[in-house]
This record gives sequence, structure tokens and C-alpha cells, in this order.
Amino acid sequence: MKATAKAHTNIALIKYWGKRDEKLILPTNNSLSLTLDGFYTKTTVEFREDLTEDIFYLDHKLVTDEQYHRVTKFLDLIREYAQEKTLFAEVHSINEVPTAAGFASSASGFAALAAAAARALNLGLSDQELSKITRQGSGSACRSIYGGFVEWHKGMELDGSDSYAVPVSPQDHWDVRVAAVVLSAKMKKVSSREGMRRTVETSPFFSSWVDSIPSDLEDIKQGIKERDFEKVGQIAEANCLKMHATTLGANPPFTYWHDTTLAVMQTVQQLRENGIPAYFTIDAGPNVKVLYLPENEEKVQDILREIPGVTDVKLSRSGQGVTYI
Amino acid sequence: MKATAKAHTNIALIKYWGKRDEKLILPTNNSLSLTLDGFYTKTTVEFREDLTEDIFYLDHKLVTDEQYHRVTKFLDLIREYAQEKTLFAEVHSINEVPTAAGFASSASGFAALAAAAARALNLGLSDQELSKITRQGSGSACRSIYGGFVEWHKGMELDGSDSYAVPVSPQDHWDVRVAAVVLSAKMKKVSSREGMRRTVETSPFFSSWVDSIPSDLEDIKQGIKERDFEKVGQIAEANCLKMHATTLGANPPFTYWHDTTLAVMQTVQQLRENGIPAYFTIDAGPNVKVLYLPENEEKVQDILREIPGVTDVKLSRSGQGVTYI
Repeated sequence: MKATAKAHTNIALIKYWGKRDEKLILPTNNSLSLTLDGFYTKTTVEFREDLTEDIFYLDHKLVTDEQYHRVTKFLDLIREYAQEKTLFAEVHSINEVPTAAGFASSASGFAALAAAAARALNLGLSDQELSKITRQGSGSACRSIYGGFVEWHKGMELDGSDSYAVPVSPQDHWDVRVAAVVLSAKMKKVSSREGMRRTVETSPFFSSWVDSIPSDLEDIKQGIKERDFEKVGQIAEANCLKMHATTLGANPPFTYWHDTTLAVMQTVQQLRENGIPAYFTIDAGPNVKVLYLPENEEKVQDILREIPGVTDVKLSRSGQGVTYI
Repeated sequence: MKATAKAHTNIALIKYWGKRDEKLILPTNNSLSLTLDGFYTKTTVEFREDLTEDIFYLDHKLVTDEQYHRVTKFLDLIREYAQEKTLFAEVHSINEVPTAAGFASSASGFAALAAAAARALNLGLSDQELSKITRQGSGSACRSIYGGFVEWHKGMELDGSDSYAVPVSPQDHWDVRVAAVVLSAKMKKVSSREGMRRTVETSPFFSSWVDSIPSDLEDIKQGIKERDFEKVGQIAEANCLKMHATTLGANPPFTYWHDTTLAVMQTVQQLRENGIPAYFTIDAGPNVKVLYLPENEEKVQDILREIPGVTDVKLSRSGQGVTYI
């Protein structure tokens, strides 16, 4: 009843922005991501008959706060699925996702937790089933089950039974790289959960955002199929800008951007003006991720590091899905 | 056949963003502005029988480029109105609107030109007629005919006959101040004309922007009536953010913001967190205008001047409409 799984984080190129069901974590739109090899969580789950409650260690430290409750609540779903309502687990997670890099460690975290827990109980889940259960821990985590480009189908059913991720191009590997640009900016003021909710409820731009997704998705999948980096980059950048536009219309309005965020965006545009294909995307925080091709790694990295207010640039490439150790 | 008029620039609190007729300069939405005393254009127009074409001096220099053609084209409208198709003018303009401050000198410029030309020919125009003709030189200029808070009615007619500005609160003076924060940033890459056009044609957010205007206008006019500075400031800031959101959805997307633009926005929000009511608004360029009350002038000015990348802060207060000298 013990298993260890490793899952990588992912960066959305077509953003997940807005929930249609907060409890089941059902999104208002399909999203598409690239799994990254640089950042991961490794989690061991051991179910033990002698435990009367779950125990959770993160980076060797016992966790008892809200993070613990998210883990327990998620293990309840696994227990329900396994019909083992009184079987508790000891969980050990090692997070190789620096919070400062602006990646949600919840994506790799819940993917690794779900995979290890399901394997520990020998649930024999298909990847789709695993993705579906993972989604209920953290939405974007459902994409981290797979490597490479991944699409999360929002689904239509009220119970979420058709809301899970699938690989977009499972056969071939395409070496697209991502630089995570870390800013010295402080923590974000509006959580992504609160930001989504406020935007869905109050932004006049939200419905246009949702309406614009199907054509973005179709185009970017075409670009991935054709390995057309500029097409993929352009659509990703434009999609990110649309997502951030919706927050400016919320009531009260807000933005995740800081001054250095803008400086990085401008630098990426300058790179393109100088003939280097590079594109940015930004999640619900101030940090920027820059997509580029391997041959431009040195130039891209050097230029990004020179921007005042940038404290670190972490490089990553297309990574694999969940693995078991 | 000679007259001199002085007109001030204005800052839109409900933005003019989108044209329904490019030739007649008819907007897609009503807008509302505050006329500012700090920045103005003084223009003398003399119609002379001996001239065979218009002559235009700006700041004592003869102008022959595109600016000259905009002036001549505008004087054609005046000539048409006066039924004096072969009467040309010598025009002298002095611009006290530093381009670097990010104010469109075309607002005060065309208001002063229209007023001086109409007066020189003794056309006996009402303010509304003058505003309507001014509009055809530069849209936002039609608001500079009046002092204080001014609303530009977009109008419904195809010929623009009901598209002109009117004063919002003609009776009483309210001492609201504006700091124009000048950035070291380079010239903007997308003109406001091109930016509007691209947004109208391609942004999925444009129709929601237009739909959101009537309630913003109603609320801000209520705020002006009640002299509720925080209400006026909040609506102005939110309206500006919505306008800039529309550009992020355009194809290709663009923004007028620079890194220092964001830094100023954040500083204004910090001012509020420290109990000082201050609100920003941004036109189609990187510079920021900050609204504040007289009692906070020193604090606001000091804090804005300290922001790295800010080269100057120019203070202004509510100004008067067109005057004749």
C-alpha cells in the first residue's frame, strides 16, 4: 500500500481562467499546456491500517495548516473511490518547484499525490481517470499527468465526468524551451482562485474571453502539429494578454502585472524585432515565462538576465508525464 | 478678419475610444473630460484677401508637413461654413502643451484654431456649433471648448449633427487637480488613431467596452454632482483600465503601457492604501495622469517624483474653456 510518483509542473499556453463549478473544479474553457521538465514534485504515499488520520510532510517538514487540509480533502476523494473510508496515509512530498519562480506547485503537487495514492491502493486507473480525479485537487494539475502538449477538455457534464486532460501530440517530441523569469516583486495580492471568481462574476470581458477560446485552440493545435513555433508563440502570447485583459474589467479591477513584468514583455518583443523568435506568457502572478527554441537559448537567457528587477532565469524544456519510482 | 483664441487641453475621465465614422470623427461612445489650466494653445487667425493659400506657424516656425495639411483641411470646413471658399488665412499658434507630457496638443490646438477662425470671420457660432466643427479637426478637441467637466455626446445622426460637447456642471467650480507624470519612455509605437481602429475592428472586448459606458457615465456625473472625489476617481480609473484592456485583445495585440507606467499605477494604489485619495488615468500613450485633491498636492507630487523612470511631474488644475484675447 505504498507508492512513489513524480509529476512535473506545466505552463498553460491557452489559459485556464474561470470556473463553471468551484467545488468540482470545472472550467469555463478548454486549456492547453506544455509540461516542463525543470520543475517537479516527488511524492510517496503509504496507506497504513494503524493511522487514525493522514500525516503530510512537505520537504521533510510536518504540515498542519491549510495545505494539510487540501491534501486530506483530496485523499478523501481517493478513499471514496477505493471504498476505503477509514484508511489513512502518511504522505511525503519533495517540491522542486521554487515558489519564487511563479509556478503553481499545486499542479505538480496534486498530480504526484493523485498518482502515488492511486498506485498505493492499486486502483488501476487509466490516465483519463487519474486526470479527472487529479482535477479535483487542483484544476491545472489534471494536465500534469501527461508530458509534452496537453489539452484539458472542460467537459459538458454537471458532475465533471467528461472534464479531464488528454495529450495533444503523444507520438513525437518537439524541443520547445521555456525560461521562467523570476522577479524581485512581492507576493501577489489576489490569489488565482479569487481572481478567477471576481473576473467571472464582474468583468464585462469574460464572456468574450470564453468565446475566443475555440479558435485559439484550433489554431495552436494546428501550429503544434506543423511545428510552427511562431504560430504557437503568437497564439500563446495573445491568449495570455486576453486573459489579463479580463482582470482589468473586473470590479474592483486588478492586474497581476508589476513594472518588471512589463519590462520583460517589452524585452521579448525586442528580441523578436531583432529576429529571435521568443514569446511570453504570464499566469496569475507577476512572473513571466518565455518560450524560445534551443538554438537561441544563450541569447534569450543573457538578455532576460540583464533586465533590472529580474533576480533569476530558470530554464526548462518539454517534460514527461507522471512516472513511478 | 483677425482673432486670437486660447484653449486648454483636457483629460478624459471616461475615455473616447473608438470611432463610428473616421472621416467625420464620430465616436462609438460618449466621453467625459476635465479641462486643465496648465496646458493650452494660443492661436491667431487672420484671413487675408491677398493670400492664395493658408500659412501656418507653430511656435514661430513655418509648418509645411502633415500638420499643415490637417490645419488647411480644417480651415476648409470653416470656409465652407462661411461660404468663403477662396479666402485664405495666416495662422500663428503657440503651444504650451509639452508633447512629452503625453497630452494630445491636438485637443487645445484645434479648439483654439476653430475658435479663432470662427471669430475672425464673425460666424457667430454657439458653443455647441463651435464644438461640432472643432470635433472634425480632432475628436477630443470638441471638449476643450468648455471649462471644468465636459461631456461629449456621441450623437446618433450619420452626418454628425448631434455629436458635440456640453458642460457637465457649468455653475460651480470644484478644485480637482491633475499631476501629469512624464516618463523617460520613448514615443509610442501605435498612434491613437491606429490603436482605435485596430481595436474596433479586431478586439473581442470592444463591444463590451461600448456597452459599459452608459453606466460609468451616469455614475461619474452623479459623483461630480455630489463632489464625491473617491467616486469620480474610482470610476475614472476603472474606465481607463477597461479601455486599455480592449487593446490587449486586438489582433495583433498591443499596449500603451511601459514598465514605469505600471510603477506609477502601483504607487497611486499605495497612496490610497496610505489614506491619500489619488486615482490614475492613462490615454493612448505611456504617461500617467494622477487625480488628487489640493490638500494632498505636496505628498502626491513628492511620491510621484521619486519613482525611477519619472522625469517630470507637471501640476494642473481645472481650467476654463475657450477665451478670446
